[in-house]
Amino acid sequence: MSLLIRSSYVSQFHTRNSKPSSSSDQIPSKSLLFSSFNHNPLINLVYKRNPRMQSLSFSSSTTVKSSLIDPDGGELVELVVPKSEIELKKKEADSMPMVKLTKIDMEWVHVISEGWASPLKGFMREDEYLQSLHFNSLRLKDGSLVNMSLPIVLAIDDQTKEQIGVSKNVALVSPQGDIVGSLRSVEIYKHNKEERIARTWGTTSPGLPYVEEHITPSGNWLIGGDLEVFQAIKYNDGLDHYRLSPKQLRKEFDNRKADAVFAFQLRNPVHNGHALLMNDTRKRLLEMGYKNPVLLLHPLGGFTKADDVPLDVRMEQHSKVLEDGVLDPETTIVSIFPSPMHYAGPTEVQWHAKARINAGANFYIVGRDPAGMGHPTEKRDLYDPDHGKKVLSMAPGLEKLNILPFRVAAYDTVEKKMAFFDPTRAKEFLFISGTKMRTYARTGESPPDGFMCPSGWNVLVKYYESLQESDDSSKQQQTVVSA
Amino acid sequence: MSLLIRSSYVSQFHTRNSKPSSSSDQIPSKSLLFSSFNHNPLINLVYKRNPRMQSLSFSSSTTVKSSLIDPDGGELVELVVPKSEIELKKKEADSMPMVKLTKIDMEWVHVISEGWASPLKGFMREDEYLQSLHFNSLRLKDGSLVNMSLPIVLAIDDQTKEQIGVSKNVALVSPQGDIVGSLRSVEIYKHNKEERIARTWGTTSPGLPYVEEHITPSGNWLIGGDLEVFQAIKYNDGLDHYRLSPKQLRKEFDNRKADAVFAFQLRNPVHNGHALLMNDTRKRLLEMGYKNPVLLLHPLGGFTKADDVPLDVRMEQHSKVLEDGVLDPETTIVSIFPSPMHYAGPTEVQWHAKARINAGANFYIVGRDPAGMGHPTEKRDLYDPDHGKKVLSMAPGLEKLNILPFRVAAYDTVEKKMAFFDPTRAKEFLFISGTKMRTYARTGESPPDGFMCPSGWNVLVKYYESLQESDDSSKQQQTVVSA
Repeated sequence: MSLLIRSSYVSQFHTRNSKPSSSSDQIPSKSLLFSSFNHNPLINLVYKRNPRMQSLSFSSSTTVKSSLIDPDGGELVELVVPKSEIELKKKEADSMPMVKLTKIDMEWVHVISEGWASPLKGFMREDEYLQSLHFNSLRLKDGSLVNMSLPIVLAIDDQTKEQIGVSKNVALVSPQGDIVGSLRSVEIYKHNKEERIARTWGTTSPGLPYVEEHITPSGNWLIGGDLEVFQAIKYNDGLDHYRLSPKQLRKEFDNRKADAVFAFQLRNPVHNGHALLMNDTRKRLLEMGYKNPVLLLHPLGGFTKADDVPLDVRMEQHSKVLEDGVLDPETTIVSIFPSPMHYAGPTEVQWHAKARINAGANFYIVGRDPAGMGHPTEKRDLYDPDHGKKVLSMAPGLEKLNILPFRVAAYDTVEKKMAFFDPTRAKEFLFISGTKMRTYARTGESPPDGFMCPSGWNVLVKYYESLQESDDSSKQQQTVVSA
Repeated sequence: MSLLIRSSYVSQFHTRNSKPSSSSDQIPSKSLLFSSFNHNPLINLVYKRNPRMQSLSFSSSTTVKSSLIDPDGGELVELVVPKSEIELKKKEADSMPMVKLTKIDMEWVHVISEGWASPLKGFMREDEYLQSLHFNSLRLKDGSLVNMSLPIVLAIDDQTKEQIGVSKNVALVSPQGDIVGSLRSVEIYKHNKEERIARTWGTTSPGLPYVEEHITPSGNWLIGGDLEVFQAIKYNDGLDHYRLSPKQLRKEFDNRKADAVFAFQLRNPVHNGHALLMNDTRKRLLEMGYKNPVLLLHPLGGFTKADDVPLDVRMEQHSKVLEDGVLDPETTIVSIFPSPMHYAGPTEVQWHAKARINAGANFYIVGRDPAGMGHPTEKRDLYDPDHGKKVLSMAPGLEKLNILPFRVAAYDTVEKKMAFFDPTRAKEFLFISGTKMRTYARTGESPPDGFMCPSGWNVLVKYYESLQESDDSSKQQQTVVSA
């Protein structure tokens, strides 16, 4: 049980959902479930194991309720209109004032429409926005609280506000110009960017990636309302099959007869330290009496800052890690979490955890400085590296989730592998940060043996080589132009 | 009931504590209770009405529990050490490392030691600080939440931290050099001023009064621990008799057999618009069936910004308002709220309300832009004037408090008196802001008839005259020096 922590404040919730079920469910044999890889092992992981998954996508309208943990608000929100109503709804939307969405807005439409933010049913109205900003939680009608640490809001400019006038409903238009859905019974209120930024990030320093990309250029008004989308959001980037909705994930956990699901949020390539940690977590859950703990390896798929490794490269790297057997494909589900990244540390980690409750995970792994980054203008971490897990362990609305603190892994120069850091022989450990890892890959230098599986490492090296090439070719182009 | 609002989210709490008691308590007759004014009517109000109050101050150790509303955490915190232990405790403290307090630190020692911040028992440790900063609330051991929107913390500098070393306890030294108490089982953690300011004020703009006075010059560490004070905090400024503790106030409400207590927080002189509002509130509470609603007129007594009217002048002004009968002395208690002012709008108004729960008030009047001010660097209000009451009505831990929204009062130029604003004849109303009021008083110009009782107004005029004189004399001195 030493792996489990919760603040003493919430000790009464400690094991509410952490007791292994007493059922005698047997996991199906490996050979049956995982008979072959095809070109992409991750597709196998999710789809081949259970043929039903392939057709499940958006046709079923039954309520999915995993036995492990209830969605926030009790029921998973799903906002895709039924097929029978699509034509009518589209026709209606044609006559509504239009709100043009950015790429990040679309990511939020995706997030909300699939219920990651349950019980939120649309972009926040002012009451919800204020509760999120001040309390990191929303109060439900029954008086209980659910966690909601990030304002999930839609900004519009003065001109759009004027066009909307007193209309009750608006149509939502994708960056490509398609009407993707509508927002109903809208409420328009002031977008005080300074206050939103200060209360979300704990700083108003210039250089915050999400702020510069998405908030600063946005309008002075926020529009909230009930969301409806005409069809499930797709990206057509070759990765849509990884984008399982909370409903699909819950169904898959049930199909696998998981009696514990532990989620690992990441936005970086998986190295052997991560793998050690995830495998160790599974081991400890087994020791606690769980029969079939399943890992949800859940890379973030929305907006990330420019120097992070892009999603497609990460997905390829993750697939190599599973192909190489560093993580056990049988007890791992790899899927994309569609949220954009805020880099808002202790505030954001709550969102990352809360969304995974909705996806059916009842254990959440939290590491050092989750969702953190360097201060944009000062030589220090933006957040105290310990605050993330402290805040997470005390956050209102997350009591039912079991928080698993990250043990620090580093490269053991004696054993020549990633291992849990042993402070009694600190000098024999090498810490390899994300920045250091990227520098290795960029310069073509090999990391120490055992840092990452070779095939996974190769994916990164190729990516940085391609960057170099495009850099070189753009430099050549510039030379031509300036010549 | 139209005076009562709560968000629909919390509608189930709406009248939990707002039902008149069914007891047949009779209020004592006016002649018995309020037989004479002496030179200061406010002293009469509190002490003369009940001779027991005069000796009650710090001798009684019984738990005071008003029947109207429980203190947060169930029991009122009181941290003055019993007389029998004072010598021992003082001797102990003599050998502890010393922490020098500023004037504002002392105000917090006062606040904490009397239980205004119940269940807080000292300056916040990091767990409490983080919950306050992120959630505006603290979780109790039973899983319930109490409101705690402002971090109540004590900053120390590097040198003091070094002197403390691994000591468990520290002595607290007043600005005058006296050891006033101790902090026990201390925890020292980083003081990230930028984050604290951003999350508390929703801005990091220069020019925030509390920040410039108290945070910017403070040390890079915070020290939390359990507080003990050797005697009740006194100011010896001729106003200590107005400084009733929550325990004293609760006893007084009980003595008066109040069946509703409505608190009015203010840091400005009382004009007839305020009076109208307070009298109207009482009328409405009577209409709701309460037999004896009592007003707690509760001016803030701690740090205020330089251009606010000083406490002694305000207290004199308030006494005139009661002498003149603008407020009914029989159903009004005037007392000083010892907290310093943050000017932190929606975040601070929660603190103002929460502290009054601890003092026994079960109704709280909230106005436009509570605890707000102009943006220090931009031409706008720092906070949306409606956010204060919205946030207050949704704040975790304040469910048991009945929030009374302020109806806007303005000067009715036809009726020649302060009246509730009537939008159908908007042009006939004159809004007189605090700034405008101060300008009238400073320039010696009379405000419109009926704006404030003449004796109260006179207090302000005299104050501004005295400022003018001291300005003139300092200018003369400067002339002499430069000559």
